[in-house]
Amino acid sequence: MTRVFNFSPGPATLPEPVLRQAAAEMLDWHGSGMSVMEMSHRGKEFMSIHAEAEDLLAELMGIPANYQILFMQGGAIGENAIVPMNLIGATGRADYVLTGDWSKKSAKEAKTYGTVNVAATAEASKFTAIPKQSQWTLDPGASYVHICSNETIGGVQFHWTPDTGKVPLVADMSSDILSRPIPVEKYGLIYAGAQKNIGPSGLTIVVVRKDLLGHALPITPSAFNYKIQGEADSMYNTPPTYAIYIAGLVLKHVKALGGMPAMAEHNAVKAKILYDFLDQSSFFRSPIAKEDRSLMNVTFWLKDEKLDDPFVQGAKQRAIVGIKGHRSVGGMRASIYNAMSVEGVQALVKYMQEFERSHG
Amino acid sequence: MTRVFNFSPGPATLPEPVLRQAAAEMLDWHGSGMSVMEMSHRGKEFMSIHAEAEDLLAELMGIPANYQILFMQGGAIGENAIVPMNLIGATGRADYVLTGDWSKKSAKEAKTYGTVNVAATAEASKFTAIPKQSQWTLDPGASYVHICSNETIGGVQFHWTPDTGKVPLVADMSSDILSRPIPVEKYGLIYAGAQKNIGPSGLTIVVVRKDLLGHALPITPSAFNYKIQGEADSMYNTPPTYAIYIAGLVLKHVKALGGMPAMAEHNAVKAKILYDFLDQSSFFRSPIAKEDRSLMNVTFWLKDEKLDDPFVQGAKQRAIVGIKGHRSVGGMRASIYNAMSVEGVQALVKYMQEFERSHG
Repeated sequence: MTRVFNFSPGPATLPEPVLRQAAAEMLDWHGSGMSVMEMSHRGKEFMSIHAEAEDLLAELMGIPANYQILFMQGGAIGENAIVPMNLIGATGRADYVLTGDWSKKSAKEAKTYGTVNVAATAEASKFTAIPKQSQWTLDPGASYVHICSNETIGGVQFHWTPDTGKVPLVADMSSDILSRPIPVEKYGLIYAGAQKNIGPSGLTIVVVRKDLLGHALPITPSAFNYKIQGEADSMYNTPPTYAIYIAGLVLKHVKALGGMPAMAEHNAVKAKILYDFLDQSSFFRSPIAKEDRSLMNVTFWLKDEKLDDPFVQGAKQRAIVGIKGHRSVGGMRASIYNAMSVEGVQALVKYMQEFERSHG
Repeated sequence: MTRVFNFSPGPATLPEPVLRQAAAEMLDWHGSGMSVMEMSHRGKEFMSIHAEAEDLLAELMGIPANYQILFMQGGAIGENAIVPMNLIGATGRADYVLTGDWSKKSAKEAKTYGTVNVAATAEASKFTAIPKQSQWTLDPGASYVHICSNETIGGVQFHWTPDTGKVPLVADMSSDILSRPIPVEKYGLIYAGAQKNIGPSGLTIVVVRKDLLGHALPITPSAFNYKIQGEADSMYNTPPTYAIYIAGLVLKHVKALGGMPAMAEHNAVKAKILYDFLDQSSFFRSPIAKEDRSLMNVTFWLKDEKLDDPFVQGAKQRAIVGIKGHRSVGGMRASIYNAMSVEGVQALVKYMQEFERSHG
């Protein structure tokens, strides 16, 4: 068995010890005589798995007690509708900051449920930088301000926390949740698809300040109503049990490695290796403003796009996969989430150096 | 390792060979160097897994070409809103047949999205029988007629297919999909949470006649819009990839066992063992009308409910778990889906005989 270096943007590489444990426990979890997949979600075995995952998330992220943690379904694209359904009813209006494909998509979907104000957009610069807060036009009567903390496709990331005063800040953190310490108390709501830094696809994490609940539009489906799900501890419908179990194993693994400070350091080291190489190369380039570069998704372009395919094919020969850029923007993208090793990034850069020498 | 006899109503027992294969492939699927959990949903490896699961479902259920198969999220409770969001817009009205807790819940949720007519209800008989079609009051102008083909909590099941004329028949088949041959062409839409007969929770199967699409209410979230998901082959958002993979393994296993005719025979044998025992017992009883008894969820009551707890505890001593009835109705329930063996049912009946002798 040879494991590849998997730079896919999500679903993405997972820690090998987690996969080994999941394999070992597949037919019999802790002497229960059952796979976690087979457990009733209301039985004491799964309830303990569920509670442990929730506790670990709260501990690792430093989630205050006045926040509700929800395990939902539908991913970030589902949340694009579910967030406004639950929150926009407070005033009927919301602010959106556009920093790339994901935040644009969020704003577009939200228009179905209320009035959307584009508080700032980086579209003119082709989303290669995050608009400074001095350039934002915030609506003091908005129900919330929405940002995407890390744009998986474009490769820009917030390295600062916006100040939205009394208006709650809502963040799609799908691709950088758990990658660094975050001041959760500065956010009204954080949501994330699990399939980058947490676990398998099919699980969505929502962390919401409890006082924001209670404004759901009447057309909100019960299964996607935060208040209803909160009161049922995310069991109003059957939760994605196996995905929650894997998430719990990942969280435990991250905790053992040192939690958020350790992840932040690990991720900074990996990103520096890649960006340092890109900055000195005359063959590869990163178009992203230095202060806004993503530490999770490193986008880069080859000098000549005719070499894209040979580059991807040559990578595969070296067990380096998932580096093709998103079809909407082209180029390359190395997604280097928590579970990507320094060795993986070093192997990629070594390959890039060789490719540059032979094709430069 | 001792595997238990798991009679849980869902998530539920899965075929052991499926779990063994999943464990063996956990770190490296077919030489890809990746777990299925780690694969990009748009990569060729996962695309092949997805396509195979879809093809197997179509083959096993005999799904005609004018039907769209969707792999969704949110379970049957999610579908309680998603179905009317997508279909009720045709005329603004829908018929619901109430046969227990699940269909009642479906009808209640649908009222948010249009006018709901209760075409028939068995509430007067405490849902111990399915109302005969001669007792139904159908609205010829309804967008659809909704039934629940098997009530997981109450233990009644349709053993006939309603004739709704030109009005499409919609069925929640969460707890009996794949348990027997079904004339799919007589249904407009079939939906099912996967966690009983198909695989892990977090995956929802929807099979819908294509000509019914295009009436989604404007407030339908894109991720839950059948037309949008159909055009994207269920990849408008990241699908629950690992759950789809396990479902594919289960479907392959079911096919190898002989498909729907073999499942129907297997399930009839198991149910007969249990019901035959209940009918001759003066200690245990089934309150359900004989012609409407579920072959999937066998509900039964002890003579004295004070013996419920000792009965459940004694069962656990014999590695028989998950037999407590739903908290809303009490009593006992043995869920005997496809993956429950004849041996498991025999072990349960043997225990019931012993318990009756010592407590009767």
